[in-house]
Amino acid sequence: MTPQNIRAPDLTVTQWFNTKTPISLAALRGKVVVLHAFQMLCPGCVQSGLPQAQRIAKLFSEDDVAVIGIHTVFEHHAAMTPTSLEAFIHEYRLDFPIAVDQPGDDGPLPKTMAAYGMKGTPTLVLINDEGYIRKHTLGAEEDLRVGADIALLVAEARLRKSRPGI
Amino acid sequence: MTPQNIRAPDLTVTQWFNTKTPISLAALRGKVVVLHAFQMLCPGCVQSGLPQAQRIAKLFSEDDVAVIGIHTVFEHHAAMTPTSLEAFIHEYRLDFPIAVDQPGDDGPLPKTMAAYGMKGTPTLVLINDEGYIRKHTLGAEEDLRVGADIALLVAEARLRKSRPGI
Amino acid sequence: MTPQNIRAPDLTVTQWFNTKTPISLAALRGKVVVLHAFQMLCPGCVQSGLPQAQRIAKLFSEDDVAVIGIHTVFEHHAAMTPTSLEAFIHEYRLDFPIAVDQPGDDGPLPKTMAAYGMKGTPTLVLINDEGYIRKHTLGAEEDLRVGADIALLVAEARLRKSRPGI
Amino acid sequence: MTPQNIRAPDLTVTQWFNTKTPISLAALRGKVVVLHAFQMLCPGCVQSGLPQAQRIAKLFSEDDVAVIGIHTVFEHHAAMTPTSLEAFIHEYRLDFPIAVDQPGDDGPLPKTMAAYGMKGTPTLVLINDEGYIRKHTLGAEEDLRVGADIALLVAEARLRKSRPGI
Repeated sequence: MTPQNIRAPDLTVTQWFNTKTPISLAALRGKVVVLHAFQMLCPGCVQSGLPQAQRIAKLFSEDDVAVIGIHTVFEHHAAMTPTSLEAFIHEYRLDFPIAVDQPGDDGPLPKTMAAYGMKGTPTLVLINDEGYIRKHTLGAEEDLRVGADIALLVAEARLRKSRPGI
Repeated sequence: MTPQNIRAPDLTVTQWFNTKTPISLAALRGKVVVLHAFQMLCPGCVQSGLPQAQRIAKLFSEDDVAVIGIHTVFEHHAAMTPTSLEAFIHEYRLDFPIAVDQPGDDGPLPKTMAAYGMKGTPTLVLINDEGYIRKHTLGAEEDLRVGADIALLVAEARLRKSRPGI
Repeated sequence: MTPQNIRAPDLTVTQWFNTKTPISLAALRGKVVVLHAFQMLCPGCVQSGLPQAQRIAKLFSEDDVAVIGIHTVFEHHAAMTPTSLEAFIHEYRLDFPIAVDQPGDDGPLPKTMAAYGMKGTPTLVLINDEGYIRKHTLGAEEDLRVGADIALLVAEARLRKSRPGI
Repeated sequence: MTPQNIRAPDLTVTQWFNTKTPISLAALRGKVVVLHAFQMLCPGCVQSGLPQAQRIAKLFSEDDVAVIGIHTVFEHHAAMTPTSLEAFIHEYRLDFPIAVDQPGDDGPLPKTMAAYGMKGTPTLVLINDEGYIRKHTLGAEEDLRVGADIALLVAEARLRKSRPGI
């Protein structure tokens, strides 16, 4: 995890599950955001990425960390519709907010996936309390490292809150 | 596994994957048939049932054992269409023949699932070389037991072949 | 598993755990014997071999199958004494009979290990009801295959019992 | 993890593995210390505790975190001698420093285990850069949480280093 100066692009999505109102990254300033990009028919997402996202949502306080899933379909579009996703979320008992990435105007990549420059799924993006991307990785990441990365961002956020003048 | 006198009902299906021509149980007389009923969005099927079916298909000779998957959708019908199933089969690298159970005329249960009296997914059915059901279980079964059950049915089949007059 | 004409050598051991009286292979004629050779400090034995032996002992009837462990220490002899083995058996809740292979007269290989020509641990040996070696493998074997192998030997044994004149 | 005012007692040990010179906690001031107490015949230690300690040693920099194992034998003393431990360390490829807790003068508990008030194995103790105990847990702890806890202590230590006057 290295400091970066890239602001996290807004989420461009068509639909949300597990939340009554749409979520904007701007509204989450002050919290660490764990953005988990997945496809419901991606075996690596089902086996490791999504269970990790659930463990994160369970371990960290909602006051500190917001876990958001985003369904970034870039292949088999007809097979992974929002209707299918809804059943998937139900069957796998996912309970954190999940958005549907907006299809691209041309080409298979959906808009948020393209804006972030994601290369596949699962992708994990950590956004700090000020809205900057601090980690962006494709594929499985071990829990020990992810736990450490998130905890450091939470510590930084708390430090900033406790010293508002700086 | 206890001897039973129930003949395995025919498969009533609308479509096949991983085979050029439809498969009938009648055409498989002489072989042991491993019928694995699943739904693509059933976590227990994805985590244990389907991987076990793949291991069976890999371990036993095709001359002795035919592994057949059947997609028995009895819930979330709009979410698990043949289009979604096709992508699922591709992404999970399933390579044994898989059929789509025919929707029921009334009620959510598809026809083959109803004919077999299946109560959910995953369900494993072992059919002997003469077309009789010899095992029918719902839920995860340990590999050691399933391997033993299939081997016994194969042994019985070979014995029958070697003593045609009996 | 291929037919072999090698008779299983007797066990040459110094001590038994989990049985009141020593066990001889001769006394087990009529049953299938699963002989599991291990070392208590061999990671592959602890992680896969011994748990598999326990599953076998639990699944198959004692009337058909006898599971026997044999502690074949060929390295770190001072570290894996019978005293250490006894605590290991207790802590890992192993409940099938386990023998201590007799140290060799010259060289590190214990006597039973040498008599069987074992190359390391874990080693799995299947002995049929007539005392012949029918399988001998070094390293992890998948449950599906082991279950099938044992079931076939059990079927052969039962067949022989039912046709005593042949 | 809650702030505590308990200073970590010194290690009272008889022998070290994987280090040329004995290690004292005092010499590790400035670093976070991960103290992992185990017994070589404790299944929970072998399956989860020790692999986690190895992952920690691999992930975090030695400049920030010192992982130390301590063999706290409180049962089966004759079965878990330093001779057996040495072979265990070799076979399981453990490469962080490991000490042998000194047997107690009366009773089964070894001295360091008693000084820390440990109730069993595996026990994980996190000691901060100033020598205070910040976490003390018995049994398996999930990687996500342990990674977060260690990272926070590392962050605190770095902060202290960067502001020596405070």
